[in-house]
Amino acid sequence: MSEILRVGIAGLGTVGAAVARLLHRQAEALTARTGRRIVVTGVSARDQHKKRDADFSGAEFFSDPVKLAASENIDLFVELIGGSEGPARASVETALAHGKSVVTANKALLAAHGLHLTQLAEENRVALSFEASVAGGIPIVKTLREGLAGNSIERVYGILNGTCNYILSRMEREQLSFEECLKEAQRLGYAEADPTFDIGGFDTAHKLAILTSLAFGTRISAQSIDIEGIERVSLADIEAADELGFRIKLLGVAQRTADGIEQRVHPTMVSKNSAIAQVMGVLNAVTIDADAVHELTLVGPGAGGDATASAVVADIADIAKGVRSAPFGLPSGQLVELKRTPMRRHEGGYYIRMSVRDVAGAFAKIAGRMAERQISLESIMQRGRRGAPGAAVDVILITHATSEHLVREALDLIFEDGTIVERAQVIRIERE
Amino acid sequence: MSEILRVGIAGLGTVGAAVARLLHRQAEALTARTGRRIVVTGVSARDQHKKRDADFSGAEFFSDPVKLAASENIDLFVELIGGSEGPARASVETALAHGKSVVTANKALLAAHGLHLTQLAEENRVALSFEASVAGGIPIVKTLREGLAGNSIERVYGILNGTCNYILSRMEREQLSFEECLKEAQRLGYAEADPTFDIGGFDTAHKLAILTSLAFGTRISAQSIDIEGIERVSLADIEAADELGFRIKLLGVAQRTADGIEQRVHPTMVSKNSAIAQVMGVLNAVTIDADAVHELTLVGPGAGGDATASAVVADIADIAKGVRSAPFGLPSGQLVELKRTPMRRHEGGYYIRMSVRDVAGAFAKIAGRMAERQISLESIMQRGRRGAPGAAVDVILITHATSEHLVREALDLIFEDGTIVERAQVIRIERE
Repeated sequence: MSEILRVGIAGLGTVGAAVARLLHRQAEALTARTGRRIVVTGVSARDQHKKRDADFSGAEFFSDPVKLAASENIDLFVELIGGSEGPARASVETALAHGKSVVTANKALLAAHGLHLTQLAEENRVALSFEASVAGGIPIVKTLREGLAGNSIERVYGILNGTCNYILSRMEREQLSFEECLKEAQRLGYAEADPTFDIGGFDTAHKLAILTSLAFGTRISAQSIDIEGIERVSLADIEAADELGFRIKLLGVAQRTADGIEQRVHPTMVSKNSAIAQVMGVLNAVTIDADAVHELTLVGPGAGGDATASAVVADIADIAKGVRSAPFGLPSGQLVELKRTPMRRHEGGYYIRMSVRDVAGAFAKIAGRMAERQISLESIMQRGRRGAPGAAVDVILITHATSEHLVREALDLIFEDGTIVERAQVIRIERE
Repeated sequence: MSEILRVGIAGLGTVGAAVARLLHRQAEALTARTGRRIVVTGVSARDQHKKRDADFSGAEFFSDPVKLAASENIDLFVELIGGSEGPARASVETALAHGKSVVTANKALLAAHGLHLTQLAEENRVALSFEASVAGGIPIVKTLREGLAGNSIERVYGILNGTCNYILSRMEREQLSFEECLKEAQRLGYAEADPTFDIGGFDTAHKLAILTSLAFGTRISAQSIDIEGIERVSLADIEAADELGFRIKLLGVAQRTADGIEQRVHPTMVSKNSAIAQVMGVLNAVTIDADAVHELTLVGPGAGGDATASAVVADIADIAKGVRSAPFGLPSGQLVELKRTPMRRHEGGYYIRMSVRDVAGAFAKIAGRMAERQISLESIMQRGRRGAPGAAVDVILITHATSEHLVREALDLIFEDGTIVERAQVIRIERE
């Protein structure tokens, strides 16, 4: 290995500038740790002359990131462009094909092309590292790939989107509606103008797909994730959760089942006493259930330039040291096809909130429908003041563990019976 | 590298047996991850024929661990004997000197001889890994050494002893005395017959010494840790903490200060809302404050055969892959002498509980003594029923951040004034 590791950075936004600053600030420590000098020798961005929070004057500028990726003056390519196609994909493929290791924060790219890129990295005997693609500064990729190498993992789940967690935390703390909190998140820059990608659960799904592959040795498969966003979580749910000892979080969950792997993203009731329930605001958290370590939880910043740069630089340092792990823990040929456990087979507890007409008579009918499907109830709660006789009242059921398809069947029948005003709100419960 | 990695295990107690079971159970996955077969070819224990929870019949038995360490039939030596001297030290030194990598869970050995062993590993170009020595199954060594390689660390602190956390959690939850909870911990096997090493804070100190060296690039220095145990924490403190929004934890804290590194182990008031306050029972947790990642917390099992074996096997897997990090992150020659910040220079908030005679008059005097030393008070609370006039009453002060030596001076004067029945109880407050 040469004494200098020459780094090319494509994408000079918040994270790119933070990576450059960190490499500069920690230059001495990184050399001591890795035995090599790490130098940014090339950069690429759309606008060369935009004012940035870092000095790139010593690096060669490329308007085309693919040209940077192919440059003979870099050993390692850092992709911070984003997006699953276009210049991000083209430049990463080019770098790997040219025998350069790649560090990327691009979850969309990995979710779409993770297996193909892994194969390309293997063929060219270079590293493909993506610590920054999941949960920002939390070293969860390293933990799954190396730290728990001796474990068989049963479940991995987490709060992987700070925007959603910010909104849900704020709804709870300040008794504000979803819409109000979303606006506030947009005002503070935590949410995009078009927030669908975050609040619809798609960002969480991309990250979950990466965690699933690392945890279970499966080929990455984002399309087999069941996704629900937080748009339908109401203040009524947040308040009821609080009374019942729960808190609502948007979780990504990947779980080994008897017949495959269940991957799901949805608002979730978690016990208020659980470690994950304490994670408020824009923080992220990941919990791993495994046979040897039992339960391990990591909590930290899921986004932000510095935290993401921390993960990028850790990957660069490993590559500088000559460490080359299989991107998803196993050689690509040993990653198995993911067998999807469909959502209707999901087993767990459920929170069900229904607007019930004429409670006394209606409730017997509802309870009967649940009993027909062998769904047993852990608790029943009636909420809100009663209006005129016959006015609808919120009734909340917490079920013991049961099957999703039984719950759906029972709720279809209850809706058809006409005892409830609108379709019931259903939120899955996740136990520690 | 040969296709087979031959492992020798010295010490076949709970952890040794769990390591062997895990290597066996995960054999296929480990080969896939590391490219090598990992085989236990030699073992050593005091009693060859004792019944164990693992099958060692395929391995050569050595009654002397030093002979195992020198054996030509092993590539890697796993030391699970314990103790800072005697056979543990001799066998680790022998293994390193014979060019064999070492994996150890022995915090006492590292606290006493970490620098010397690191030098020995470097001279012989082998790995010295000790993930299992701190916080059991939590991959904190890897996180500090690799995952946060780009960070400058400001503070690392944690709950590093499950016995103490179990006792403090139980005191709080069940309103039991320290003595009752200690007995219960001993009955359940969480505490030794002689519990001094755990409850006196010494076990935490050994682990903290390792974390400090990793976090700050300093030569390990357990003797410069200020240590207080939990023996003096009373139910009155636990109850008062609860009322004031705190919880008491035994923390190990290492912190960069203006003139050095502060290393301390003591019962600590932490905000009930903090992540670390949620860590109950025998769990461990470590929080790292660093410039790039800001705050990262890891929570998991701090002891137990399986969890500790998880960490040992992760180290073995890294070595099997050929990864060789500097044991404490930096080459030993670059680890700097730790400049100790003495405890009297500690800056922070304080909880002070005093049994005050004749409260009305006495309190003015106490407040005067605090004011003389420029100690400002955040809150004042009087606790307990008043008995006969003149009977002592518990008064609790919470100070704003101040210097330890000012607090000590003020409390000495207050004691000399005769306004309090006995020396005040002082517990430091740690802010997130």
